[in-house]
This record gives sequence, structure tokens and C-alpha cells, in this order.
Amino acid sequence: MENLEIIKRKAVQIFSEKELDEKLNSGKKLIIKFGADPSRPDLHIGHSVPLRILKQFQDMGHQIVFVIGDFTAMIGDPSGKSKTRPALTYEETRKSAETYMQQVTKILDVNKTKIVFNSEWLSKMNFEDIIKLASKYTVARILERDDFKNRFENNLPLSMHELLYPLMQGYDSVALNADIEIGGTDQTFNLLVGRELQKDYGEDSQVVMTFPLLVGLDGKEKMSKSLDNYIGLTDTPFEKFEKSMKIPDSVLKQYFELATDIPQNEIDNIMNGDIIEAHFKFAKELLKMYDKEEDFEVVKQRYDKIAKGGIPENIKEIEILEDNMNICDLLVKISFASSKSEARRMITGRGVKINSIVKEDINELIDLSKEIVVQFGKNKFIKIIK
Amino acid sequence: MENLEIIKRKAVQIFSEKELDEKLNSGKKLIIKFGADPSRPDLHIGHSVPLRILKQFQDMGHQIVFVIGDFTAMIGDPSGKSKTRPALTYEETRKSAETYMQQVTKILDVNKTKIVFNSEWLSKMNFEDIIKLASKYTVARILERDDFKNRFENNLPLSMHELLYPLMQGYDSVALNADIEIGGTDQTFNLLVGRELQKDYGEDSQVVMTFPLLVGLDGKEKMSKSLDNYIGLTDTPFEKFEKSMKIPDSVLKQYFELATDIPQNEIDNIMNGDIIEAHFKFAKELLKMYDKEEDFEVVKQRYDKIAKGGIPENIKEIEILEDNMNICDLLVKISFASSKSEARRMITGRGVKINSIVKEDINELIDLSKEIVVQFGKNKFIKIIK
Repeated sequence: MENLEIIKRKAVQIFSEKELDEKLNSGKKLIIKFGADPSRPDLHIGHSVPLRILKQFQDMGHQIVFVIGDFTAMIGDPSGKSKTRPALTYEETRKSAETYMQQVTKILDVNKTKIVFNSEWLSKMNFEDIIKLASKYTVARILERDDFKNRFENNLPLSMHELLYPLMQGYDSVALNADIEIGGTDQTFNLLVGRELQKDYGEDSQVVMTFPLLVGLDGKEKMSKSLDNYIGLTDTPFEKFEKSMKIPDSVLKQYFELATDIPQNEIDNIMNGDIIEAHFKFAKELLKMYDKEEDFEVVKQRYDKIAKGGIPENIKEIEILEDNMNICDLLVKISFASSKSEARRMITGRGVKINSIVKEDINELIDLSKEIVVQFGKNKFIKIIK
Repeated sequence: MENLEIIKRKAVQIFSEKELDEKLNSGKKLIIKFGADPSRPDLHIGHSVPLRILKQFQDMGHQIVFVIGDFTAMIGDPSGKSKTRPALTYEETRKSAETYMQQVTKILDVNKTKIVFNSEWLSKMNFEDIIKLASKYTVARILERDDFKNRFENNLPLSMHELLYPLMQGYDSVALNADIEIGGTDQTFNLLVGRELQKDYGEDSQVVMTFPLLVGLDGKEKMSKSLDNYIGLTDTPFEKFEKSMKIPDSVLKQYFELATDIPQNEIDNIMNGDIIEAHFKFAKELLKMYDKEEDFEVVKQRYDKIAKGGIPENIKEIEILEDNMNICDLLVKISFASSKSEARRMITGRGVKINSIVKEDINELIDLSKEIVVQFGKNKFIKIIK
């Protein structure tokens, strides 16, 4: 029952633990529902928290079901108020689901995983079905959802159709006859709607389990790509290593607990030791989970060399035919800068080195007749060859 | 433009009068929507108020459309909370619509009247259509409806599906492309939803006109069958006459203004004269509208005779074979009483007369060998013949 221990350790709330134990003890292959949002397909270790829980359930022999909310994705926001919800075509929803699932393979055995699209049942519902669905819930109960409540009480626009979304999402549990649904703590309300609707439709209520949202590398905001405070599952081993070193000490323990499956006592040991070593251990675990454990020594060496101001091995090479070039043009050519004015700012900011020497003259003509290494900041390098 | 004068005189609110005039002046045959509730098919002169308005529009050459809400009638109340809304079958909705329209013939030319059932379009809507419809309205705006507001603010149950009903009713206006919708003042909110939705769906907004609810014969409550304070369109001429005499003097003018089409100056003249004469005039107008004007003198004579304690002419006759019968058995036999104990109470209460003589002995054996007249109270008579 090591799997279950990890699951329970990470859970914030379980509705209810007694029912969870009963279902798990029933010997039945359980249906574990997970609502995926493939509209943001760049998965990071924040996303990995629920996915690793699913992995535990999968290893226990249960059936993982990803529900792709293509139905609402295809409708978009008919009120036109939300810019983040443009209507997608059928093909777009399939394509983004594919990209999403491709990344999920880094954690789950996708061959054993079921993927369903909720348009399958929602598009078949008629007005009578929807009236029946809506009759199961009171307005007051729906308006308990925090964001609805805030908008309603502060007289911010809240359209009628938005109130239907939690019911649709909840109905997915009915359609799937889900045994367990897991999600982030921000999904608690929606998951509970599913649990209650199942009862109204004469099914056994699903167990609802919520898991924490991982804080970003800034130690403050929720990890997200748009805030650039994330460690991506598809980041290179070096990026993973380097970002691991930047995790604030104060949240490193949380990262171990949520983003890895290392046993709690081992985590406690690590955190009681040297903090730099702890960061190394975290990086190593990441590479073990998502890349190759052997990568660790390679990226660590590179990292150490840069830390000492040296030029790492195995840097990217680019071939340039010209014999010489203005330094700004060169920075644009190798894509360090997106424009000459940006290149000028990089130089005057003393960020640009050639062969480890800081360059200050924006008009300098760089000799390209022999190999040189261009560097920006601490860890951007390009070797220019003939 | 006499028709329009009558319409405007009776209206409480018009959204907007300017648009109404423009539509009427366009020369177009306008679509006038009226939402009928055939679940209560016993029409009374309270119902006649909007129906007589429709008659005016019909006489002006416009197209009257009765919308029968069979869709919601067939769904019933899926939450099971409302006992007044049991689900009806398709046949039941058609049958009650027929009974309803039969009574409408007393006011409108039904051959020129269109009857539509909203299941025609509502049953074809899918989840996407409904999301689109719901997106047109904010929650705050729907909760402005008085009954919703009261229930919501007083924490009384208000189910999600109920919020969809005004949208459905409003969508009927979109489906019909209605030019004008009329209804009672209690329908103002719903009618305005239709007006606003039409704009959202790219149609011209319908003009909304609301009309007063007629007060009942008690002078207090809204006229309704369940409160037994009504004058039914299918009441006998005598019942209409008798009930007209019972209209409280204080509301008689309102009855003239709303339930008849007599010009205002004439109503003022009537009300400035003798009040008993005014009641007679109202009764006469009712008979003129719904029965035969000539009936007036007949029922008035009968009424006068009873008022003087006499026995009216043309009373109902019943044949009884027995030569004699106990008085209580007789009262049950002719359906004056529903049981012998009720018959006894009627006699001991000195309410029963035979041939104008009060009967006091509950054991009396009544001689039926010759014709007699049995009377209960002031105006229930039956002649027993051989």
C-alpha cells in the first residue's frame, strides 16, 4: 500500500476517506476521472502533481480516464466576454489533446489510459435533459463557488451560461460513472458538483480528492508558464538542473513532497542536511523521472564550470560564412538579440562577452576568420565556426 | 383609431409607445404574441382583459398568435418541488389547448388566430443553443424578477432550472419574430426578456404592453376560480347577471373599463348615475358580449321575482316515480344535498322550502303525487313532476 500512502500524503481533502478505503478494498477496478485542460499543453511539474497521483492509481491497477472538455472548447464563450475562450474547431480540440497526451506519457502509461471527449454525451443532451440537470441544483448552491460569489456580490458581470458549466463538468462524472475524481484544490467545488449529481442520478457518489497547487520558482505565485516561474516537463536536463538550483529554500521541501514520490522520511533526511545538496538531489530526482539519471553528472559539470565563469563544453555551434561582422549584426544573426537596438542595449549593459572578454563598443567589427565563443549573461553560449 | 384608443386606455405600461405607433403606422400586418396558459381552461372575465385587447388588434387586421407552453408542461417540474406542475402528455397538452381555444371563440375569431406550441422550437434546441441563449443574460438581471429575488434573498429554494424558464418564454418571441407581446402586469419581467433577447438575436425588439389584473368579486384578491370570486365566460346568463349585482360598487368602474369596450365618456356617465342601474348596465353588456342581449330582460325578471321571494319561471324540472319520500332522501335525490346529514342541517337551518313554505321536520314524508317546487336558499329551485 505504498501507492496509497503517497496519495494520501499529498491530498489536501478527501470526501470521504472512509468511502475511498471502501472502494479500494472492494477489489473492483475503479474508474478514476481527471478533467484535463489541453488548451495549455506545456506541462510543468505543477501539472505533474495530480498526474503522479494518477500514476499511483494506475500502478494499483485502476482505470485512469482523462476527460477532455472539448464541448465547451468548441462553443467558446458565446457572450464574447472572455478572450481566453475562443471557439476551437473539432480538429483543434483533437490536436491539442494529442499534444497534451504526448507529454502525459512522461508520467503515465498512456496505453492503459482512457481518453474521452465530453462532447460525446453533452452534445446529445436536449433542452429537457438540461432542465432536468439544472433542477438538481439550487441557485444559492451554485453561487457558493468562490469566483461566482465574488463576481455576483461585487456586481461584476456573471452570465447565466457560466452557471451551467459546473453542472456540465459534474455531469461528466455521471456519464462516466466515475468512482474517484481528483483535481487541484481550485477545483474542489466543481468536483463536488459531480459527486452530488451522481447521487441525484441514482449512481454511487464518486470520492473527491484534491491536491495542492505547486508554488512557482518565485516562491509566491502558483506555478505557470505565463509567469515564467515553472520547470517544464520538456525542459532540457540542463534547464531542469539550473531551475532546480533556483527553487527558494523555503519551498524546496514542498517540491519534494508534491513533485516527487520520495518517501517522507527520506525527504525529511534530505531537508535536514546541506541545502545545496538538497537542491542537487531534487534536480537529480527530476532527471530520473523525466530524462535520464545519468544526465545529472553531465549537467552538473557544465553548471559548475559556468558558475566559475568558464565556458562549458558541448555548446551549440553555428556556421557563419562572412569573415567579419558588426557586433550588433552578429548578435541578431545568432538570435541572441531580436533587433539591433536590443543588441546595443545588451552590449552597453555589459552582458556580452566574446571569448570571455566583455565587449563595450557597439561599433566593433568582429573577426570571424577563426572560431570564437559568444556569450550572453551567465549561461547563453554559441560557438561560431567556419 | 377607436381600437387603439381602447387598447391604450387599458394598458398599464407600454415599452415603448413610440415604437408601438411606428409599428402600427408601418402598414405591416403585425405579429401579436400572447402566451396562453391552457392548464386552467375555465376562462373568466379577468382573462378577458388581454383577450379583448387581442380582439382589438385582430379587428385592426393584425395576426394574433397564441403560444401554448406545452414544452414546459410536458417536462413538468423535474425537481418535484411544485405540485402544481405535474408533467402532461402530448395528448393532454393538445386537449387542454382545444378546451381553452373553444372558450376563446367567445371573444376572438379563432379562424383568423394562429396557435403554436413552443415545443416546436424548444425541443429542437441542443446544449450549444442553450448555452448561447443563457449567455445573453446575467444572473443578476434574472434575479431581478420579484419572485426570484424574494426567494433568493430569503434563502428559499430556487432551483437552477427555474432561471431558464423566463429565457425559454423570451426565446418564443425570437422564434416567432413577434412585433408586439401583451400580458398581465405580473408578466412584465418575462415579456421584457423576450424584447431583449430579440435584440441579441438580431431581430427588431417587440413592443411590450401590460394590462391590469382584474380584481375579483370580493373587491380584494385577483379574480380566480380557486377563490370563487369570478364571473366565468361560460357562466349561465342568470349567473352572470346575479354575479354582476354582487360586484362591489367601489370596483364597478374598473370592471367597465377593463372587461368591456364601452367608451370612457359613456362609462363616466353610467357611473355618475344610479349605482343599481350601473350594475344592470354591466350585466347587460356582459350578456351582449358573451350570450344574447335579449337574455337580459329574461334573467332580470327572474332575478326580480326571486328578490321578492317568489318562484321564478322556467326552472329545472325533474321526474320522480315514487309517490312519496322522506324530505332528507328527497334533497339528496335532487342533489341539493350530498348526504342525509347535510340535508338535515339544511332543514334545521331553515333553508329548505317546498311550495314557498319553510320545512322544519327532518322526518316529514313529502307527497309527490302532484307537482311541487323545492327551494334552497334564495335561488336554487327544482320542480318535481310526475
